[in-house]
Amino acid sequence: MKLYGYFRSSAAYRVRIALNLKELDYQQSAINLLKGEQNSEDYKKINPQGLVPTLTTDKGILIQSLAIIEWLEETFPERSIIPGDSWKKAQLRSLAYQVSCDIHPVNNLRVLKYLQQELAVSDDAKTQWYKHWIHTGFTALEAQLDDQPFCCSEQPSIADICLVPQVFNALRFKVEMTDFPKIHEIYKHCNMQPAFIDAAPENQPDAV
Amino acid sequence: MKLYGYFRSSAAYRVRIALNLKELDYQQSAINLLKGEQNSEDYKKINPQGLVPTLTTDKGILIQSLAIIEWLEETFPERSIIPGDSWKKAQLRSLAYQVSCDIHPVNNLRVLKYLQQELAVSDDAKTQWYKHWIHTGFTALEAQLDDQPFCCSEQPSIADICLVPQVFNALRFKVEMTDFPKIHEIYKHCNMQPAFIDAAPENQPDAV
Repeated sequence: MKLYGYFRSSAAYRVRIALNLKELDYQQSAINLLKGEQNSEDYKKINPQGLVPTLTTDKGILIQSLAIIEWLEETFPERSIIPGDSWKKAQLRSLAYQVSCDIHPVNNLRVLKYLQQELAVSDDAKTQWYKHWIHTGFTALEAQLDDQPFCCSEQPSIADICLVPQVFNALRFKVEMTDFPKIHEIYKHCNMQPAFIDAAPENQPDAV
Repeated sequence: MKLYGYFRSSAAYRVRIALNLKELDYQQSAINLLKGEQNSEDYKKINPQGLVPTLTTDKGILIQSLAIIEWLEETFPERSIIPGDSWKKAQLRSLAYQVSCDIHPVNNLRVLKYLQQELAVSDDAKTQWYKHWIHTGFTALEAQLDDQPFCCSEQPSIADICLVPQVFNALRFKVEMTDFPKIHEIYKHCNMQPAFIDAAPENQPDAV
């Protein structure tokens, strides 16, 4: 399998964690989002959205990080990343979607770019926008977490796979984590696991 | 089961379609988003995000439309809404996430409100923002659709469940659908099915 990604992309980061948790081998191909490589004719042939990640497999091409993660879980069920009975799975997916549908999409690169370039929003207002959505999302998440080492679980799952890249991103934007002690603990705990360490942006071949 | 929703919420609309496709009985409770009922103390006890939908079941409370849809599929596997083998399921989920992670989140009520109230964006610029993300997302989707009556499928799936409410919303914002003939055909075809008709905003008890 080959993963097209970018070291700092949260969505690519999720898939790297999932592949590592499942101990699957994969190659990486870097798509530099800052240089606009995601919009090249060649890349858009494999990813019509012009986004990362893309996973190429012996079945074909798959885009969208959560679709890749669900497919990995169905295809390689060992070392489950959506563990438990169907109700537990639902709770873990719910936490994952709270990050991937309600926090990440409003704060990703292309949206922040639009704010600056099309709406001429100031740097301060852009940072406030970023922090507003993180604060809204993390406050709700924090209220749903218990005291287990991972998100509502003894083992890492799709919820941690989505949460860790989002916290990494929030820390880059200097979000203060003191209001979110449970999230912060889980983040630190995840980052002691090899699967998360090996997936971290700074450990990718294209890291700057 | 009881569904807390709002007639015009795309996310609640998705769950109504899913419940109808599975021919499951459910009650509805209206949360008026324009009146801010989603932020009441009482509602936040069942949905800490202060968003709709919420589904209450004999197992407990579940939030996040996609988590509800996946749980319905696992719990009531008949009349599958994620049909096919694992590769087909992955493709259908990918289309669903392109709507639910990349289009809907940047265009929903709370984001448009923030643009107007916090960033003092003009009505014109807000409409342009809305249309930009619809156009970006629909252009990519259109390129991935084939000529089947539903999204890449002979039967309705999670992809149509996400797409139809988004098209409904786009039409409210007067998006011109001529650039997206396949999406438009699928939308019209879905809206001839009872499950979609009964889930439509105008057919809900709280419709204005």
